[in-house]
Amino acid sequence: MTEWLYGRHAVEEALVAGRRRVHRLLLADNTKGSNRNEPGTPRDLENVAREKQVGVEWVPSSRLDVVTRVGHHHQGVAAEVSPFVYSSLADIEALCREAGQSAIVLLLDQVQDPQNFGTLLRTAEAVGVTAVVMLDRRQVEVTPAVVNASSGAVEHLQVCLANNLPRAIESLQEAGLWVYALQAEPDAPVYTAVDLKGPLGLVVGSEGKGISRLVHERCDGALAIPMRGKVESLNAAVAGSLVLYEALRQRS
Amino acid sequence: MTEWLYGRHAVEEALVAGRRRVHRLLLADNTKGSNRNEPGTPRDLENVAREKQVGVEWVPSSRLDVVTRVGHHHQGVAAEVSPFVYSSLADIEALCREAGQSAIVLLLDQVQDPQNFGTLLRTAEAVGVTAVVMLDRRQVEVTPAVVNASSGAVEHLQVCLANNLPRAIESLQEAGLWVYALQAEPDAPVYTAVDLKGPLGLVVGSEGKGISRLVHERCDGALAIPMRGKVESLNAAVAGSLVLYEALRQRS
Repeated sequence: MTEWLYGRHAVEEALVAGRRRVHRLLLADNTKGSNRNEPGTPRDLENVAREKQVGVEWVPSSRLDVVTRVGHHHQGVAAEVSPFVYSSLADIEALCREAGQSAIVLLLDQVQDPQNFGTLLRTAEAVGVTAVVMLDRRQVEVTPAVVNASSGAVEHLQVCLANNLPRAIESLQEAGLWVYALQAEPDAPVYTAVDLKGPLGLVVGSEGKGISRLVHERCDGALAIPMRGKVESLNAAVAGSLVLYEALRQRS
Repeated sequence: MTEWLYGRHAVEEALVAGRRRVHRLLLADNTKGSNRNEPGTPRDLENVAREKQVGVEWVPSSRLDVVTRVGHHHQGVAAEVSPFVYSSLADIEALCREAGQSAIVLLLDQVQDPQNFGTLLRTAEAVGVTAVVMLDRRQVEVTPAVVNASSGAVEHLQVCLANNLPRAIESLQEAGLWVYALQAEPDAPVYTAVDLKGPLGLVVGSEGKGISRLVHERCDGALAIPMRGKVESLNAAVAGSLVLYEALRQRS
């Protein structure tokens, strides 16, 4: 079984990370001459692919429209690859014990929008999180759209699909993490007033429904983001990103 | 000239803010019975609209598909409204002088993706910025898609279209603002290490091209966001949001 990644960053990071098998790279004819010396161009990707001994075909752009099924959003680049490789919860626990005080795990409870999901994964990678754990149903998996929205970052991340999120939280707590739900509620302290320097788990929910009750009950506490305007909440990817970067700030 | 706003939050905030004339509200028949007591449902919006003496029509959902041209993303709610009302640069300057030390202006240089643009505006409203200034070409204006992506927040914001961004920056500097470009460059200090407590301008550029040279040269300094992973940059809306919330943190 294969799938088609698309977009310059998505394909480049898949090639660089080297975790998936890349069967072939399709590049759009009409991008052949453009900015040939700049990194990230199709011409540059051709070189990266050849180094990795991946076959490259220059084809009409319309061929990429067909295989990727995303209109013109492929930027002239598509790669046929093996499926995303997920980690097990045992892998994640081991990584957390190894990371010790610096462990950070991002947990996603029913985040459904691929754009938000990818954006948050991009931040998670930029912060250097240890791993990502997500519920294995009722939310998007790591699809090509998510890889694209993450600008390829997810290719470098350890992602675990958990079939029971409260139980996964319990395992992470046993591995030493203090797990917070990012959820506005009456007594939740502001995220910048909480010590986030130790081993940390952060649960982000969906925009509409927030975090499910059983997941919330299993957390060690909640964090709130101050809202000074008239609207009630932030974009979920922004909210999660703020807390991840606050943890990084406190650690530096 | 009118346009069609869509989405529950977008339409609700337009009604509440009351800056646009709302000619009529269309609600989808098939949402009539759902969760009638919850805020933000079509039934709830019907009441808000009637208080504001706006005509309400319950129509087949397909009618909303046609007027909004966004497939099913309208959530059963659409409103025909007068165009977004922009502020002048003189208005913004006056607001900044009035806000004094607490002034924050978000400046957008060629941000093009409506989703990112709306997401960043949503954060700007949540932080309580004084105003938003954006270049009046080569980037999206406040379209219905942007209002929707901002979850309606932009209806509460003062937004100015400037035809010359360096000159707008100069005016804001004369009004007392210290203006930073959010741009990774060799000597830029990390955003959390810079004093952001005084009157502040923050310039965010497009993801691909960053901030244009003339705009950058006019700024008082640059800010960088630390990157600890393998990818090189964050989503533009996330990056801007991090600095806006850091300013809020330093001020509380």
